[in-house]
Amino acid sequence: MAKARKYVYFFGAGKAEGRADMKELLGGKGANLAEMTNLKIPVPAGFTITTEVCTHYYAHSRKYPAELKAAVNKAVAGVEKVMGKKLGDPENPLLVSCRSGARASMPGMMETVLNIGLTTATIPGLIRLTANPRFVWDAYRRLIMMYSDVVMEKAAGLEPAEGRGIRTQLEHVMEHMKHEVGAKADTDLTAEQLERLCTLFRAKVQEVLQKPFPDDPQEQLWGAIGAVFQSWNGKRAISYRRIEGLPDDWGTAINVQAMVFGNMGDDSATGVAFTRNPATGEDKFFGEWLTNAQGEDVVAGIRTPNPLNISTKSEHTAHLKSLEEVMPQTYKALAAIRNNLEKHYRDMQDIEFTIEKGTLWMLQTRTGKRTGTAALRMGVEMLRQRLITKEVAVTRVTPAQLDELLHRILDPKAEKTGKVLAKGLPAGPGGTTGRVVFTAAEAVAWSARGEKVILCRKETNPEDVEGMRAAGGILTALGGMTSHAALVARGWGKCCIVGCGALKIDAASRTITVGDQTLREGDWISLNGSKGVVYAGQLPTVDPDPENPMLVEFLKVCDAVRRLGVRANADSPKDAAVARKFGAEGIGLLRTEHMFYGEGSDEPLFKLRKMILSKTPEERRAACDELFPYVKNDIKGTLAAMDGLPVTIRLLDPPLHEFVPQDEAKQKELADSLGISLSDVRKRAEGLHESNPMMGHRGVRLGITYPEVSEMQIRAILEATAELLKEGKKALPEIMIPVTCTVEELKDQAAIIAKVKAEVLAKFGLKKLNFLVGTMIEIPRAALTANKMAAAAEFFSFGTNDLTQMGLGFSRDDVGAFMPDYIAKKILPADPFQTIDQEGVGELIKIGIERGRATRPGLKVGICGEHGGDPASIHFCHKVGMNYVSCSPFRVPIARLAAAQIAVKDAPGKKPAKKGRK
Amino acid sequence: MAKARKYVYFFGAGKAEGRADMKELLGGKGANLAEMTNLKIPVPAGFTITTEVCTHYYAHSRKYPAELKAAVNKAVAGVEKVMGKKLGDPENPLLVSCRSGARASMPGMMETVLNIGLTTATIPGLIRLTANPRFVWDAYRRLIMMYSDVVMEKAAGLEPAEGRGIRTQLEHVMEHMKHEVGAKADTDLTAEQLERLCTLFRAKVQEVLQKPFPDDPQEQLWGAIGAVFQSWNGKRAISYRRIEGLPDDWGTAINVQAMVFGNMGDDSATGVAFTRNPATGEDKFFGEWLTNAQGEDVVAGIRTPNPLNISTKSEHTAHLKSLEEVMPQTYKALAAIRNNLEKHYRDMQDIEFTIEKGTLWMLQTRTGKRTGTAALRMGVEMLRQRLITKEVAVTRVTPAQLDELLHRILDPKAEKTGKVLAKGLPAGPGGTTGRVVFTAAEAVAWSARGEKVILCRKETNPEDVEGMRAAGGILTALGGMTSHAALVARGWGKCCIVGCGALKIDAASRTITVGDQTLREGDWISLNGSKGVVYAGQLPTVDPDPENPMLVEFLKVCDAVRRLGVRANADSPKDAAVARKFGAEGIGLLRTEHMFYGEGSDEPLFKLRKMILSKTPEERRAACDELFPYVKNDIKGTLAAMDGLPVTIRLLDPPLHEFVPQDEAKQKELADSLGISLSDVRKRAEGLHESNPMMGHRGVRLGITYPEVSEMQIRAILEATAELLKEGKKALPEIMIPVTCTVEELKDQAAIIAKVKAEVLAKFGLKKLNFLVGTMIEIPRAALTANKMAAAAEFFSFGTNDLTQMGLGFSRDDVGAFMPDYIAKKILPADPFQTIDQEGVGELIKIGIERGRATRPGLKVGICGEHGGDPASIHFCHKVGMNYVSCSPFRVPIARLAAAQIAVKDAPGKKPAKKGRK
Repeated sequence: MAKARKYVYFFGAGKAEGRADMKELLGGKGANLAEMTNLKIPVPAGFTITTEVCTHYYAHSRKYPAELKAAVNKAVAGVEKVMGKKLGDPENPLLVSCRSGARASMPGMMETVLNIGLTTATIPGLIRLTANPRFVWDAYRRLIMMYSDVVMEKAAGLEPAEGRGIRTQLEHVMEHMKHEVGAKADTDLTAEQLERLCTLFRAKVQEVLQKPFPDDPQEQLWGAIGAVFQSWNGKRAISYRRIEGLPDDWGTAINVQAMVFGNMGDDSATGVAFTRNPATGEDKFFGEWLTNAQGEDVVAGIRTPNPLNISTKSEHTAHLKSLEEVMPQTYKALAAIRNNLEKHYRDMQDIEFTIEKGTLWMLQTRTGKRTGTAALRMGVEMLRQRLITKEVAVTRVTPAQLDELLHRILDPKAEKTGKVLAKGLPAGPGGTTGRVVFTAAEAVAWSARGEKVILCRKETNPEDVEGMRAAGGILTALGGMTSHAALVARGWGKCCIVGCGALKIDAASRTITVGDQTLREGDWISLNGSKGVVYAGQLPTVDPDPENPMLVEFLKVCDAVRRLGVRANADSPKDAAVARKFGAEGIGLLRTEHMFYGEGSDEPLFKLRKMILSKTPEERRAACDELFPYVKNDIKGTLAAMDGLPVTIRLLDPPLHEFVPQDEAKQKELADSLGISLSDVRKRAEGLHESNPMMGHRGVRLGITYPEVSEMQIRAILEATAELLKEGKKALPEIMIPVTCTVEELKDQAAIIAKVKAEVLAKFGLKKLNFLVGTMIEIPRAALTANKMAAAAEFFSFGTNDLTQMGLGFSRDDVGAFMPDYIAKKILPADPFQTIDQEGVGELIKIGIERGRATRPGLKVGICGEHGGDPASIHFCHKVGMNYVSCSPFRVPIARLAAAQIAVKDAPGKKPAKKGRK
Repeated sequence: MAKARKYVYFFGAGKAEGRADMKELLGGKGANLAEMTNLKIPVPAGFTITTEVCTHYYAHSRKYPAELKAAVNKAVAGVEKVMGKKLGDPENPLLVSCRSGARASMPGMMETVLNIGLTTATIPGLIRLTANPRFVWDAYRRLIMMYSDVVMEKAAGLEPAEGRGIRTQLEHVMEHMKHEVGAKADTDLTAEQLERLCTLFRAKVQEVLQKPFPDDPQEQLWGAIGAVFQSWNGKRAISYRRIEGLPDDWGTAINVQAMVFGNMGDDSATGVAFTRNPATGEDKFFGEWLTNAQGEDVVAGIRTPNPLNISTKSEHTAHLKSLEEVMPQTYKALAAIRNNLEKHYRDMQDIEFTIEKGTLWMLQTRTGKRTGTAALRMGVEMLRQRLITKEVAVTRVTPAQLDELLHRILDPKAEKTGKVLAKGLPAGPGGTTGRVVFTAAEAVAWSARGEKVILCRKETNPEDVEGMRAAGGILTALGGMTSHAALVARGWGKCCIVGCGALKIDAASRTITVGDQTLREGDWISLNGSKGVVYAGQLPTVDPDPENPMLVEFLKVCDAVRRLGVRANADSPKDAAVARKFGAEGIGLLRTEHMFYGEGSDEPLFKLRKMILSKTPEERRAACDELFPYVKNDIKGTLAAMDGLPVTIRLLDPPLHEFVPQDEAKQKELADSLGISLSDVRKRAEGLHESNPMMGHRGVRLGITYPEVSEMQIRAILEATAELLKEGKKALPEIMIPVTCTVEELKDQAAIIAKVKAEVLAKFGLKKLNFLVGTMIEIPRAALTANKMAAAAEFFSFGTNDLTQMGLGFSRDDVGAFMPDYIAKKILPADPFQTIDQEGVGELIKIGIERGRATRPGLKVGICGEHGGDPASIHFCHKVGMNYVSCSPFRVPIARLAAAQIAVKDAPGKKPAKKGRK
């Protein structure tokens, strides 16, 4: 028999059954409520129903475990005891909330029911106790709206037509009454009017849902519990989990907790705060609060909230009173809790609090979401403050967050002269430009057809998530830094401005009015999400600053922790300089053919084309001779820029026909230069056509059939090196033979290298030249026969793009026809061109390394495919024992971080080993 | 210190130091001379210098081991003792021959020197002894010609201009003398004339080579030894070894042997014979002989020889006297030796003999080359005669020989009305048609540009080998069944007719004259090589007869020995019937798409195209419905033809655009049928274009994106099976999913299969349907993840064509650009599309089988690429433990043989194990 499971965990009165490390079972919220309780922080008593109940519920046709009822009853009794109130007690009734709480935060994606326990029987008693009939009727009004929507309609599976939902109908009833009595805001309604509204609400519920509104606290509680579990599989929640990559089988926990009220009058308040600034990372207690309000009012962004304290007031909030000023004692208590929590959790916390008639209650603590900038600063500063170790510091910034810092920003020069439309709160980093769209659906549709868009909304809600994902930026008129839009955008590192009140965003008419100006759908605007400035028109964006000092400090920490080397793929002296700025320790891939498409003269490209269209070895050798000085100079420049760091130079790789010009003028020019007719040029070009060029005459195969082409390139590399040596400079080239599948190919090319080396040594009067000869492993056979390849290769560089193409038989240019279906049907977990297919391609890599090092134990191994900048792939490279990864210069910091994180994960607590030769 | 090696092996007077099984050391000829000596067969005494001397010679700058001199001297003394003569003895001189003898026969590829020991000092004595001055001077004349050419010119590395070689110059001297004295043939010259000729020869040698002709027997002997070793690395020998795939480092042995003479008068003779007929395999002693001749005269094909005995006279040789008639006693002795040799060697022997003044001497025995027909018959008959076991019998026919029997022949109907140009000797099997060329160089050049040619020569010589290889057939005017052309063609199984005296073949004028008719270069002729008939013009060829009873009996022996199953690739009921005739045990690959290109109506192809160009699932489903009956009927026909044997049916595999029609009329028809415009058809067709279609939207990828297409095919297979069951017939389909790379693809398609199966069972009121579901392993990832694939696959069939493409990154359609260089530079040992690349692709196969069977121990494994008909690949399939190979129907017998041979090789002497399920 299975051990009896504990389904309900109680917390209250300074003692809790759960702990912070029980997130899997209790959800993040529940675990932290328990932890806070144990920390003697004031938390309203309550209990957590475990995630196992949720999985049981879905595994057993939406039935609860038999033991649940009794356990809940027992826990309710416990809450009643601590709070000194009873659920349904006409004299002293307990009200409870019922909230979801999954392992990972899914803000607003699941349901919540508040004020459970208000019934015709308990209302009079509560009015007596609070002496605040208006509050009680308002609470009942909220319960009816929320419960009828969430439990009676949604959880019952009713799907009313657009605008016919019970909540909308109740809102109409309320608007009608407000109109009738001349009330502007909800708060203008009197107790009597609210009482009448509740009667109308109950009648409306009966009319629309054909059921009375439940008047029994137990029925309300169990209805709410069911609705929260149901909402785990609601559309929004599923869609969110898909985007975030969260598993469907985690399930959610439920927290049932005694209600405390921030809306009991002006001595009551509610707020949300971060122990440090989540946007900038500054070590200042930062938050927002509202008097006489419920928590939802802050988060929903309906009212613009007040700043928490004086030091964090901004120019937008300078005129508003802070909690520090209004309730100094309570603020002091809150600030003490903040310190307690930071010291305990050693990370920035996102907290919710309520002040009920002057008493402070903590409703939540969790690790706070933050921008990349903030994560970076917190990581660096907490390390300086010795709150955390180096190893922990590097885990505090995700690669995606770091990526934000490496995001493009609006060109500062253009910003100076840009036309500012409005200012708002800087809720998401970087700069972006795009065309105005007004609905999530349009954002999805426009971006699907390749348009860059900015989603402009009064406020956002969870229904907008997919549109927010699709948009390049998000702009809202309402809401604060903790509004839905801000939270979501920050989580994704997406450029976002919220609370931009100067803008009248009208989705119905598809216009934004600002002053006397009107923007329409499709107009261009630009956002500086780091400063909160909205510009008219399309401003240019620029690359980020690699010399950001916080970034430099953080990456040094990463470098101290990581064991994997990081190089960059760079094709020119200019790229090489950028790569070094970003911390590249060498060049892992210099594609000789790319220099032909650089800026400036198209002379080299022309000469390359001449070479390609040569028919005889003599013609080809002549063309090579003409090409030689260009190739040599380019390589020399790059070697010089890297100043002795290794530079892996790949010999000509792509199928030749790629270089053949398509337009007639260029073809004619070529024909004249070659002394042949235009039709001959075309004929020769046609002769280069291939059925499957990816598996055709390319890479070393060109070097075998046209040894003069290899020879020219090798001579360019070795002469460039020799010239630098003669000039007293350092240079370390690594000659890489691409597309090999047998060691014989390497031996063939090695013979050319040996010959040219001897000639260059003689020409320059040198005794030796330092360089390596190796190969790209990008053909499955090369990996499988790596033991032999390694006999002739001093290094391997895995070309994972081609290895993925050949390993899976997927032409990268053609996968569009089926890859979307493959991902949607979960046939592949991810696009193997974005992240290494560890099971298949990874197996080839493992075999390649293992067999290669069996022959040559010191074999240097790296990766130079586009996967070299993908964190999951970098982790894989570390685990299989590569010496380095190589990626685009702008991804180098990501790679340094990812390498550090896997080093920590791979050997927690261990000192970093000495790094291999990179 | 190294053990002293024995470099020289003596044989003579019934005792030899060597044995038949010492071929590696003594060469084939030497080992067999030793063996015959030990069998008390009369062999002139001699000795063999081992192949180790040859390898030492090449490893040590062409120097001999120090011990060689003394060993040779000792052996010469031994020969002198046995023969009672002495080398250089003026009274009783010993003459010796010096012949090459490698492990494998390399007919005519190396040098020979005869009559060593004739000097001015020994000639008078020999004249006295023989009382035949004409014979002696003729022998000396031959020695000078041969030695000056082979030793003094070739071995010295002289390379005279065309027509300026010493042999040619000596021939001119001889022709001049013949003209002067009015002699027609060489034999017309008198002793005096020959003596004068020898004086002229020696003067010419001095004049041309600036050296006197050596007059010392020791110098002659060592000169000859050096020349024979040198000839191992002569051009012809190297070229022959390349073609035959013989290693360069074997080296040759040398046999020095006392001369016996067949040209000492009419009581002397020389001959070549086979213990059975090498063309037909008939168990009759078969040979050719000439009186008063040296052995070279028979082999060179200069004189048309006489038949050996009465029973083997043909219509061409009926008028000639046989040895049996001319020298009945000697013939009897020879026939006894024949019986002795066959019983001893248990295989057909190719022997050379010389009769010197009535005394029979055996000069050689070796395993005789034979046609495929002969090999088959000998194998079967020797097994019947209990000379050999089954296991030996199957090794007696090479796959290439069996292939001859499966070669196309001239259409017998066409032959009846064909215009016969001439008749000759049937020297190579099968029938062929081609265009007349006159030189080896032309044969190579014409066939390189895709022309089918027949090489027509007066006679052939070793210089012609490459041209003979390139030609589709060989035709000579001179020579017998043992002439150079016949021997070589027979070895290769190439169609060949020799001794076709009616033809005047004139290479200089590029004409063949026959009667009043003249053929020119490029004219078509046709050969029946099995009968020896030459036809004018291009006769149709037809497939061979699978019901040849000898073949059927032999293949039954193979079946009893082999453990590997053999299936055929067949795409229609007609192909299936052919496959069964050739002994296929099932169909390993039925390509559903091929049925659309069959004969008859193009309705199915039209409907397939409609399906392909469908844009919506509805359009596509409708097109599938139309296509369904065709597909079902075709599959049903094939299943019925195989009568319960397994039939592996592959679902649609190729990229769809392959099926799109290119011509406008067909496009228009399609447009009308689909109710769309012509330009729409083109647009949709363009939409199917891919950059690398081999790695594009094909195979299971189509099935994933268009499940309705899979469903239609699966329904066709299962309904066809159900219908056959209902009709009381047997059917065993195996559904094969192609181009898979992950088990998820299999699971996706398996769900469709499960659904359709349930529907078909219901529709036909059946309880069960027997079929298997499996996959093609043709993508490297599938092999690497075979452990997972096997969880959803009941069988694997390795698609080695695609596995080679992906594994090596070689597009089969594009390798032409570099494959010739790859083979020429020995970067690859062979074209991997012809024979499995065991090191790379083979490794994937091994991994696939090992991991697949780890998950599913009973996993059925086969191969269905084109490699399934290649003997080396079949051996590999056996060794890695496959259950079966599948190949084209005409290759099935080859596969049965190859499978039997590897079973014997793999476990010599073992009884065949029980065959796996095929």
